[in-house]
Amino acid sequence: MSTSTEAITPIYYDTDLGIDDAMALAYLLASPKVDLVGIGTVSGNCSAAAAARNTLDFLGVAGRADIPVAVGAHDPMVGAFDGGSPEVHGDNGIGDIELPAASAEAVAGDAADMVIELAHTHPGRLTVLAVGPFTNLAIALEREPELPQLVADVVVMGGAACAPGNVTPVAEANIWHDPEAADAVFTAPWTVTMVGLDVTMAHRFSLDDQQALTQSGRPAAQAISAMLDTYMSFYTPIFGEPCVALHDPLAAAIAAGDIDTVCAPTVGIRVDVTDGPGRGRTICDMRGRYRGYPAPEGARHRVVLEIAEPFAPRLREAILSV
Amino acid sequence: MSTSTEAITPIYYDTDLGIDDAMALAYLLASPKVDLVGIGTVSGNCSAAAAARNTLDFLGVAGRADIPVAVGAHDPMVGAFDGGSPEVHGDNGIGDIELPAASAEAVAGDAADMVIELAHTHPGRLTVLAVGPFTNLAIALEREPELPQLVADVVVMGGAACAPGNVTPVAEANIWHDPEAADAVFTAPWTVTMVGLDVTMAHRFSLDDQQALTQSGRPAAQAISAMLDTYMSFYTPIFGEPCVALHDPLAAAIAAGDIDTVCAPTVGIRVDVTDGPGRGRTICDMRGRYRGYPAPEGARHRVVLEIAEPFAPRLREAILSV
Repeated sequence: MSTSTEAITPIYYDTDLGIDDAMALAYLLASPKVDLVGIGTVSGNCSAAAAARNTLDFLGVAGRADIPVAVGAHDPMVGAFDGGSPEVHGDNGIGDIELPAASAEAVAGDAADMVIELAHTHPGRLTVLAVGPFTNLAIALEREPELPQLVADVVVMGGAACAPGNVTPVAEANIWHDPEAADAVFTAPWTVTMVGLDVTMAHRFSLDDQQALTQSGRPAAQAISAMLDTYMSFYTPIFGEPCVALHDPLAAAIAAGDIDTVCAPTVGIRVDVTDGPGRGRTICDMRGRYRGYPAPEGARHRVVLEIAEPFAPRLREAILSV
Repeated sequence: MSTSTEAITPIYYDTDLGIDDAMALAYLLASPKVDLVGIGTVSGNCSAAAAARNTLDFLGVAGRADIPVAVGAHDPMVGAFDGGSPEVHGDNGIGDIELPAASAEAVAGDAADMVIELAHTHPGRLTVLAVGPFTNLAIALEREPELPQLVADVVVMGGAACAPGNVTPVAEANIWHDPEAADAVFTAPWTVTMVGLDVTMAHRFSLDDQQALTQSGRPAAQAISAMLDTYMSFYTPIFGEPCVALHDPLAAAIAAGDIDTVCAPTVGIRVDVTDGPGRGRTICDMRGRYRGYPAPEGARHRVVLEIAEPFAPRLREAILSV
């Protein structure tokens, strides 16, 4: 790596890995600007335990067994884990492909402990990147109320400001799986960059991208390509053509500082934690849209609506380099 | 009127008149395709009683004292009338201008009775156009469960599918003022055409349009122009330039059959009647947006997102002809 230490961002990655989570992990591994200092897992696309297994195995394929992985929360703050999203990510979370079993095991302690410890190890420098339900972050905020002052940035994949939801008409999956945790994260005194469906549904991998991974001869890229069959089957009827949305990888690239945003206003964000039809919705105050989104009094979160360039080519290149 | 009887639509107009409501009324009066058979009032922008006074006086200015006006519900289905929106429509609902007092009075019976009677008088032909809270319609549905089979069309100004709200981050004023009534209207077995903020915020009157009304020398147009000062003061900081949104007039023009829609998908619509942050939101299922909005199973409402031509010129011409 030729980048100077100053420009390298230590990132804690919180994931329910997950097909697009694996793509995001590959992006982080590929980035010379990222020091992936720890990974915590959470139930969402699959169970926290399965996500840890998938993560360890994928790190093994990528030759990065050195990165510590901690198992996180199995259940959301309220209620119990609902079994995941096999229709999107397969029964095992990675499209029912079998990765070579890694010998590495998860570290002692849970994911919430890991993010707290990393925040203390890298005070004022750590970026927290969460691409699953925010349960581990909510627990960490309870255990360490100073966490918001310790971390530098929080980037999440989740929610929908004006775009439709993907579980209910208004709820996105990561928020839907633990609305109470999401509410805690958006209420905590830090600034969250929300990378939601407004922008992630607009950036997609095509069959051509998938084929390029297959043909690369590189194990990590080929593993992702194999996973993508399941993901593609889910998204094809949604988009009306064979392609997949790049949710988690885009959040990873934004956390890495690689993306120029064209429209990412500062807005207030609340989470609907009622039991009504709006449950799990991120209620973003977008009322400033008609005059260029002046930041409302007291608002501090940032919601990414548009980025400067197509993201798929950058992601493809990154995955091919792992 | 040279139009044949077949092409003339009998319309019942339900209104909390209201500055843009007065513009919508002028549009209906101007249309050769509309037979305005009755007007019911409701509390919203101002009280139902004030709305009736405003309506009767405006009809007097326009020389149409023949159209019957019924006072409708003062309070929403749950709770009490909150006093209206003086910051938008002035204390009296019409920008605090004084219209010449009409001698006509409201008819006996309330607005819900009126719409039921009109539905029976024009079976299968009546269009119901509601541009205030839907309280009268909800009461009418309770009193006459056959109403949905009797009316031909229901067009409402209200709600927001993907656009921000205008009272809360997600709630539009007409729905906000009586979510329970709106829920009843969207649940009833009829098809509602929802003309919400997604499309109405995109069509605006400018200072130039206002000036044209002033200079016309026509009493109804001049009255509207005078009202517009208050409305313009409210909207200028929202849009960052002097203009006003054409909410109710656009719904009126759609009810009259004058507007070609470019995008008006058939979707399911629910109303959030919780006490959470989503209260008063129209939850439209827009998840089909990525493949051209195929109608979901069981969906029957239509939400207007885009129309073919700029609406302001058509409205200006209509108001100038009253």
